[in-house]
Amino acid sequence: MRFVKGHGTENDFVILPDPDGTLELSADVVARLCDRRAGIGADGILRVVRAKAAGIPEIEASGAEWFMDYRNSDGSIGEMCGNGIRVFARYLVEAGLAAPGEWGIATRAGVRGVSLGGAGDVSAEMGPPAYLGGGEATVAGETFTGKRISMGNPHLACPVDAPVVGLDLSRAPGFDPAAFPEGVNVEFFRTIGDHHLEMRVFERGSGETRSCGTGTVAVAAAAAIGPEAPYESYGLDGGALPEGEWTVDVPGGRLTVTFDGTTSHLKGPAELVAEGETYPGWL
Amino acid sequence: MRFVKGHGTENDFVILPDPDGTLELSADVVARLCDRRAGIGADGILRVVRAKAAGIPEIEASGAEWFMDYRNSDGSIGEMCGNGIRVFARYLVEAGLAAPGEWGIATRAGVRGVSLGGAGDVSAEMGPPAYLGGGEATVAGETFTGKRISMGNPHLACPVDAPVVGLDLSRAPGFDPAAFPEGVNVEFFRTIGDHHLEMRVFERGSGETRSCGTGTVAVAAAAAIGPEAPYESYGLDGGALPEGEWTVDVPGGRLTVTFDGTTSHLKGPAELVAEGETYPGWL
Repeated sequence: MRFVKGHGTENDFVILPDPDGTLELSADVVARLCDRRAGIGADGILRVVRAKAAGIPEIEASGAEWFMDYRNSDGSIGEMCGNGIRVFARYLVEAGLAAPGEWGIATRAGVRGVSLGGAGDVSAEMGPPAYLGGGEATVAGETFTGKRISMGNPHLACPVDAPVVGLDLSRAPGFDPAAFPEGVNVEFFRTIGDHHLEMRVFERGSGETRSCGTGTVAVAAAAAIGPEAPYESYGLDGGALPEGEWTVDVPGGRLTVTFDGTTSHLKGPAELVAEGETYPGWL
Repeated sequence: MRFVKGHGTENDFVILPDPDGTLELSADVVARLCDRRAGIGADGILRVVRAKAAGIPEIEASGAEWFMDYRNSDGSIGEMCGNGIRVFARYLVEAGLAAPGEWGIATRAGVRGVSLGGAGDVSAEMGPPAYLGGGEATVAGETFTGKRISMGNPHLACPVDAPVVGLDLSRAPGFDPAAFPEGVNVEFFRTIGDHHLEMRVFERGSGETRSCGTGTVAVAAAAAIGPEAPYESYGLDGGALPEGEWTVDVPGGRLTVTFDGTTSHLKGPAELVAEGETYPGWL
């Protein structure tokens, strides 16, 4: 099985080129590939399939040329991944499967636009954040208040005053399960300059990670809304967010979030590290 | 840069074929290769060099054909690695650089014998354990007593009564720095059958790991010495250990330790997972 390994702000992926959609990818094989010690190691798998060969009617009818079949490292199917789609786009260009520019990639969450040159940063459309009101979480006995924001997945973005490096995120934050019935990704962010934030994130099911694309957009949205804004001002439509660009430093690097009045975009590095194939007889 | 990725009981390595010793391998490059998210990811690097091309007089004069240039994931130089040398040997055979059988591999700790067939387990000579008397460590407020054993590196092998899965090894064990001036690898082991142990290990500088070759030999030695044996009976010469074979289950798999009256041998799986090359322009 041929593969490429890459990462976006240290959120890393095994890319599996499969243009004709012939690869049988069981949950067990995904988990073995993603195993960081007994396998290749990654946060997830990006299977690269022509949309017309996806075998999924909505994807085939999407109008996009390529389908990002995203799988989580435990083998489960994922809908979208903000850092993953940026690495996916960089791979398509590096492999000569797409030209630099602006085009859409089919995902299980719909077609998402990307924008990239022949090298450098990749920008991906992330959809509008939905502000759902306030919430709180507990870390090491301390209660943090923040904003509940949905990016398709649930976030709680908590502003803090001290540098985020000092937080102990070795244990999962506590929260009221009635407020977050499906669990929640908890971000802690601090303003370190004009439209410039630093953040750390504890992802549900994964623990602290080096980067989280949707979490990055969530903290930029929380900062854009500001401390006192009433829930009713933003409601479920991210289009009401002030237009602007936010720099967000995560442990794995630096990302830029843009709100354009309609949706959000996430821009940052996407690097290809190695290419190869699994050893004969291993899988 | 061409590489192979492999592991022995989930102690994993990036193998760099460099028969003529032409590869410049800085600490920075090692650390970038071993980075689990921004690189390929591994516990260490095994550079494969002909002993005659090692550029180190003792290695060139060793009589061995191949030199295992082992590097820790932080870029520092390592002397020996019990799981690493087994993976190294499997690679040599798979790559057609050595025939199955018994031969020596040059390491910075001297020439070590290995034994392997065309497939399956690989056995490596580990040297005699040196019993240094008793010691203790503290985990989550509880004090454990054990045996201090040197395998070249320092170990404290602590017998426990309850299944090792129940131990909380998320924090480093506490110990008296006067007793372990260079730190210590702390093992916890339980007898689960006749000459059959299970163990977990907290490695100095690494935290809990899935496997540790020298630690596996250390717990087998502690079990072979038994609970009441006086220090003087074994002293610094592992040759005084009772001959015998011990099965040791570690989180990453199963290993076998043999004492032959002179030295120790570690046997177990060594798997090659993938091969490839770093992406143009990445390093």
